Amino acid sequence: MQHSIATVSLSGTLPEKLEAIAAAGFDGVEIFENDLLYFDGSPRDAKRICDDLGLKIMLFQPFRDFEGGRRDKLQHNLDRAERKFDLMQELGTDRILVCSSVQPDVIRDDALIADDFAKLAERAAKRDILVGYEALAWGRYVNSYRHVWDIVKAVDHPNLGIILDSFHTLSINDDLSTLAEIPGDKIVFLQLADAPLMAMDVMEWSRHFRCFPGQGEFDLASFLGPILKNGYKGPLSLEIFNDGFRAAPTRITAADGLRSLLYLEETTRKALESSNKAEDARVAETLFAPPPPVRYDGVEFLEFAVDDAAARRLASWFDKLGFAHTGTHKSKNVSLYSQGGVNLILNAEPDSFAHAFFVAHGPSLCAAAFRVDDSRAALERAKLYKSRSFESRVGPNERQIPAVRAPDGSLQYLVDPGEDGRTIYDSDFDPVETKSPQAALLTGIDHFALGLPAETLDTWILFFRAVYGFTTEHEWVLPDPYGLVKSRVVRSPDGAIRVPLNISENRNTAIARSVSTYRGSGLQHVAFATGDIFAAVAAAREAGLPLLEIPRNYYDDLAARFDLDPDFIERLAEANILYDRDPNGGELLHVYTEPFEERFFFEIIERHHGYEQYGAANVAVRLAAQAQSRARQQSRHAPWSD
Amino acid sequence: MQHSIATVSLSGTLPEKLEAIAAAGFDGVEIFENDLLYFDGSPRDAKRICDDLGLKIMLFQPFRDFEGGRRDKLQHNLDRAERKFDLMQELGTDRILVCSSVQPDVIRDDALIADDFAKLAERAAKRDILVGYEALAWGRYVNSYRHVWDIVKAVDHPNLGIILDSFHTLSINDDLSTLAEIPGDKIVFLQLADAPLMAMDVMEWSRHFRCFPGQGEFDLASFLGPILKNGYKGPLSLEIFNDGFRAAPTRITAADGLRSLLYLEETTRKALESSNKAEDARVAETLFAPPPPVRYDGVEFLEFAVDDAAARRLASWFDKLGFAHTGTHKSKNVSLYSQGGVNLILNAEPDSFAHAFFVAHGPSLCAAAFRVDDSRAALERAKLYKSRSFESRVGPNERQIPAVRAPDGSLQYLVDPGEDGRTIYDSDFDPVETKSPQAALLTGIDHFALGLPAETLDTWILFFRAVYGFTTEHEWVLPDPYGLVKSRVVRSPDGAIRVPLNISENRNTAIARSVSTYRGSGLQHVAFATGDIFAAVAAAREAGLPLLEIPRNYYDDLAARFDLDPDFIERLAEANILYDRDPNGGELLHVYTEPFEERFFFEIIERHHGYEQYGAANVAVRLAAQAQSRARQQSRHAPWSD
Repeated sequence: MQHSIATVSLSGTLPEKLEAIAAAGFDGVEIFENDLLYFDGSPRDAKRICDDLGLKIMLFQPFRDFEGGRRDKLQHNLDRAERKFDLMQELGTDRILVCSSVQPDVIRDDALIADDFAKLAERAAKRDILVGYEALAWGRYVNSYRHVWDIVKAVDHPNLGIILDSFHTLSINDDLSTLAEIPGDKIVFLQLADAPLMAMDVMEWSRHFRCFPGQGEFDLASFLGPILKNGYKGPLSLEIFNDGFRAAPTRITAADGLRSLLYLEETTRKALESSNKAEDARVAETLFAPPPPVRYDGVEFLEFAVDDAAARRLASWFDKLGFAHTGTHKSKNVSLYSQGGVNLILNAEPDSFAHAFFVAHGPSLCAAAFRVDDSRAALERAKLYKSRSFESRVGPNERQIPAVRAPDGSLQYLVDPGEDGRTIYDSDFDPVETKSPQAALLTGIDHFALGLPAETLDTWILFFRAVYGFTTEHEWVLPDPYGLVKSRVVRSPDGAIRVPLNISENRNTAIARSVSTYRGSGLQHVAFATGDIFAAVAAAREAGLPLLEIPRNYYDDLAARFDLDPDFIERLAEANILYDRDPNGGELLHVYTEPFEERFFFEIIERHHGYEQYGAANVAVRLAAQAQSRARQQSRHAPWSD
Repeated sequence: MQHSIATVSLSGTLPEKLEAIAAAGFDGVEIFENDLLYFDGSPRDAKRICDDLGLKIMLFQPFRDFEGGRRDKLQHNLDRAERKFDLMQELGTDRILVCSSVQPDVIRDDALIADDFAKLAERAAKRDILVGYEALAWGRYVNSYRHVWDIVKAVDHPNLGIILDSFHTLSINDDLSTLAEIPGDKIVFLQLADAPLMAMDVMEWSRHFRCFPGQGEFDLASFLGPILKNGYKGPLSLEIFNDGFRAAPTRITAADGLRSLLYLEETTRKALESSNKAEDARVAETLFAPPPPVRYDGVEFLEFAVDDAAARRLASWFDKLGFAHTGTHKSKNVSLYSQGGVNLILNAEPDSFAHAFFVAHGPSLCAAAFRVDDSRAALERAKLYKSRSFESRVGPNERQIPAVRAPDGSLQYLVDPGEDGRTIYDSDFDPVETKSPQAALLTGIDHFALGLPAETLDTWILFFRAVYGFTTEHEWVLPDPYGLVKSRVVRSPDGAIRVPLNISENRNTAIARSVSTYRGSGLQHVAFATGDIFAAVAAAREAGLPLLEIPRNYYDDLAARFDLDPDFIERLAEANILYDRDPNGGELLHVYTEPFEERFFFEIIERHHGYEQYGAANVAVRLAAQAQSRARQQSRHAPWSD
């Protein structure tokens, strides 16, 4: 299918927008009139830029408040349309969007409105222009695509058709069955937008919260499927009004837009294929078909960018967490630490990807590796979704591990079992003699959480959904003492990999500090799974790991909230372990370390009886305890000042 | 009256909050349970901090989901209450807030709920505790103060009363007439919050958008009046959930809170006095009574902090705008520029307030002077509203002009006519021989606009409303090519002084750049009034003033939007003058300069037929033209890079 986007969806000046749209790989563009209005060149100049960039101008929009107006204004409105037709000819486009009137005095008479459009279509015919009529969800009289379709049928003119917009239809929960009646060649254009479900005024919702397909919660496949089955052959076009997009880097937003249309094609294809009808299958064949998502079996390793000094300091924390130094890389300054199937890597190799990451961000997570059943298919899918891949420098007999660049430039390795039964550690690392093995208390990486600049969250969510086929959990809003934090978890379908993504709009929250420290996104914490948290805490304390102290008041309140054995509460309090219980009786016990150099911290986590969440009820006490810990440390070094 | 605030209203840790509350001058505090929960000291420690700060703990809150629960939970809930009573005794407070249940299975039976409260009140009586029952607007069964009052009356126990909250009452537009029935001694506590009027879910509205009285749109005086008339003698207490406050500097928010209560007292006093009833007048006497706002007759002068070099550069712009250098200060390195009653001052005096401002912010507006009819009364009012005043160093025979510090530390002088008919310029400046006087084309300061850090807008609005008695116009949301800008105008009641306050949440908008350039708030533009904009533009061009070029497309669209003479449109286009018309036929013609050193710009403005707005319809084209102008300048100096 062809892909298009409305210029209003992006930030910047018109030339900046057009360059980004071309760079992302779109075929064409809807010119939003205001972008042209504020452009300091002529419409012909705009057309020339598009021509040079290989972009087709697919639509000019919007033309407002045309139909059903006061009769003495009709001639003026038709003249106004002619002016826009002039402009369209300079732009070299033959399609115009007319949106339904929002004027309070619009005449509520379908025959009269049809007559207005008949006049307009006559004029359009003389100029070889196609007029598309679109229902705004807040149109004063005409506000549904079904009403528009009735009028278009009544006019029955080859130069008048309908324009469909997913937002205006899905936001009012409109009946989709009439879509099946509209022949594809009467659909002048098709606009697509997703949105989070919100209980608010529909115009405000539309103007500020639309997002790209796959970033919101609308069922767009059910909307698009019937349209394609009726033979619509025009472009899929994005029209997104979003406050975040207006402020985000233009090229990144445009690239997200193209990825979102591919994702929508794949989702729609799967929906069509699942019907098992031959006609649906024929339509499905025309849609984007990357290899399906692979199976994910967990986090294979996490890799930290360090220098030698940071490597020593971080290795000491790993040691206190019970990890053994199990390998040194055959050809690089890279060390492996392991315990119970959990692998952590410290990469201090100069002149490497990790070194560049260290220079830019300091000690930080530079890569995560996902265990997959088919790394080739996973990489192929990622590439078709326009991800950048990465090949590292390898020594002789070392394995080349396929990798994908995440939105922040960090790497995500795709590791499959390997055909010969040898692990990547066998190929690349020499074993190290270390302290005598002890029973591993940490048995897996339950999740690892990232702190992101607020405006990048939508990019990350679409990346995980499209590139990996991950799902998203609902958003949590969490109180930091200095603002609000929002958390959204992306996870592989069975939960083997879980990545909470955290953002904050406020400047002084822990997440905002993290973004500032890393100069971008970065690791917030790693949660290790354990089967015996009391033993894990005892061992960590014995080893001198600094655990976060939890205020006594928390435990007194726990006694009021849950019907727990007082002795058990005392054991929790003594070990600084937090507790949560879900409505189904699932239980969570978890403990936090102090932060490692104000960057990230570790969590040890024990789940019982199918507890699936992350202890959100305890995040506030953790954030407050961290803030108080930081305040104490600062007051040791410097007097309070503000 | 006594003043109190709930700890939940502020950001930070509990000790930080308490210190800020005491510093602002509150008498007491409501302890929000979560603040205690996360505090790393005991309740006794919290009491000790309050005692040391001279703060009384007036209330402990909230106790949730008590009434009408499952019968087998009642004993547990009563035990839970006893635990909180223990805690209250450690805190040394005797009042607890019980909010209405939000549990889906709450039993909808007033007699049973009354019985639950009778049991609770019995237990409270043994501990000398007063229980206050408050309706949450989203309570599952009990959700209005009138329903609570019915139950409190039915229980009829000295240890049970009602807690009133303005948000929960006004947000649901509840009938206020029942307030008159509630005796003051049955009101255990009174919580006050304002809010902007919003069409959204009431719980979301409450949790994120409450604000201090005078910052929102509720009619709080109508709520507070009847309560005071019934003899309520307890504190006025603020309970504000607000995302901005959670992130704002604690001390500034606390100071705003106290100012807001004083403002509410004044507003309520005026409402009571206007009834002309003796009983109302008696209550009014107990309320805060500063001198009423004075009369404002316009902006007397604007003063810029500069050094000698910046003074020369800015003076050259003033010259091109038609200002004459009319005075040099008798004792300071300060110059006066004037035309048609408009006065601009350049202050390059070392070791002065202006110099400190220049060092901190660069060339910037450091003071504005307001013409008033009584500067003493104005200053007295400002001081009673906790504003800081300022006295400058004056030379012999120079006039000391009273001044108030604005929220950003800049000065606002209050200038009255002076008894002897001499102006401040006569006293303080030596006249300068300048170019021969020409007819002044600029005749006044129509408005001057500030760019503010987003989180400070509420502080500024309350400042102008309370300290000066200014009114506010409704909010404009304006599209910058790189994000959204919000604009709120504060003005003296008759419009003689108007100050648009502009903020942006996004990082790359013109306003965000301004905030970043100034490192805080700063002048965005000054709009000069003229009676002949074509002549003013011609003179400015002749003098070489750089005017902002407006794209031709804007004028083509103007022809489609308005029924204007084509020749007139050509004249506008030739002069880069923008045009707007309001629904009543009021007309605006205005023109912008290029920015002065990426800091501020000037506007020349001609209003006709009662046009009262600011040309918001043209802001988008102005912002786009400025962005394109900046892009052109950058591309002259450096290649595009991103």
